[in-house]
Amino acid sequence: MDFWFEFGSTYSYPSAMRVEDEARARGVALRWRPFLLGPIFRTQGWLDSPFNIYPVKGKYMWRDLARICAAQNIPLRHPTSFPRNGLVAARIAARFDDAPWVPAFVRGIYEANFARDEEISDPAVVASVLAAVGQPAELVREASSEEAKSKLRTNTDEAIALGIFGAPSFVVGGELFWGNDRLETALAWKA
Amino acid sequence: MDFWFEFGSTYSYPSAMRVEDEARARGVALRWRPFLLGPIFRTQGWLDSPFNIYPVKGKYMWRDLARICAAQNIPLRHPTSFPRNGLVAARIAARFDDAPWVPAFVRGIYEANFARDEEISDPAVVASVLAAVGQPAELVREASSEEAKSKLRTNTDEAIALGIFGAPSFVVGGELFWGNDRLETALAWKA
Repeated sequence: MDFWFEFGSTYSYPSAMRVEDEARARGVALRWRPFLLGPIFRTQGWLDSPFNIYPVKGKYMWRDLARICAAQNIPLRHPTSFPRNGLVAARIAARFDDAPWVPAFVRGIYEANFARDEEISDPAVVASVLAAVGQPAELVREASSEEAKSKLRTNTDEAIALGIFGAPSFVVGGELFWGNDRLETALAWKA
Repeated sequence: MDFWFEFGSTYSYPSAMRVEDEARARGVALRWRPFLLGPIFRTQGWLDSPFNIYPVKGKYMWRDLARICAAQNIPLRHPTSFPRNGLVAARIAARFDDAPWVPAFVRGIYEANFARDEEISDPAVVASVLAAVGQPAELVREASSEEAKSKLRTNTDEAIALGIFGAPSFVVGGELFWGNDRLETALAWKA
């Protein structure tokens, strides 16, 4: 199963925190696929998160997310800035997507954004998450590499081609599932 | 629990078909609350269903709905017209909202729209659903009564005041849940 996530996306946070355990429990192989929602939203005419553009929907989302995080027993702090730009972290995750430390790195970035209210667009924050998962902080410079840029661009293009329009999304044998609440259905899907 | 529904809404269909059984199984008292999404969508600048405005999202929704209906074992025929105008049926459901035949009437309208591809904006279709649930077909004229119009308008105003922005929605003790996939969570909520 491919797990498509965007670091600025709120509902991707509870998914990122549990997807590895849930997939393992069902014996499903997992691929971590970072992408950017910004270019996709722009094609729909949105220059901001729809949760900011439609405040009534945004207010509901934060309450819904609080209920979900409480049920999942993970902390949530309403970020003082939303949505945060996850470009640097997404390039790192794309560049090293098959490294064994990437799942922990992804979770660490989400915790920085949604549990500790840290500015994940700041390379220093990304570097500290790298260090926390046992990697050299200097690895953050790889975000500027052509390989990282190209890999994230390719991921986003593939997401668009798959019909992905939001995050998190899950793809099993070409079948698309959108939303944290579809994780179990996606894992049970027979491709 | 209040079940807020709109007859044009796709995800309200699987909810309407199961909500009474699910509520009864958990001993939760249920109120049927028809309302109109049109006025709410217009305040967000949408003059059509967002599933038509954003075709990528619409394509996904129809596929997702097909999976949900298959899992729930209810028929689905992609309506040749979408969204259909449920004004007449909604006024009838609002006017008689505490009548014992209303749940069956609501399900009958959804089946007409999404299982039989019938034009539910046509009073003759609404009349035939009334007849199917043992009511005189002439009752459809009540849709033009001041009481029916006023009750549906009041419902829609109350929905807006509750922060409702889509359908189906569920409200338990002031707590709002949006979406067919939140029905179980809403029913388990301790108000």
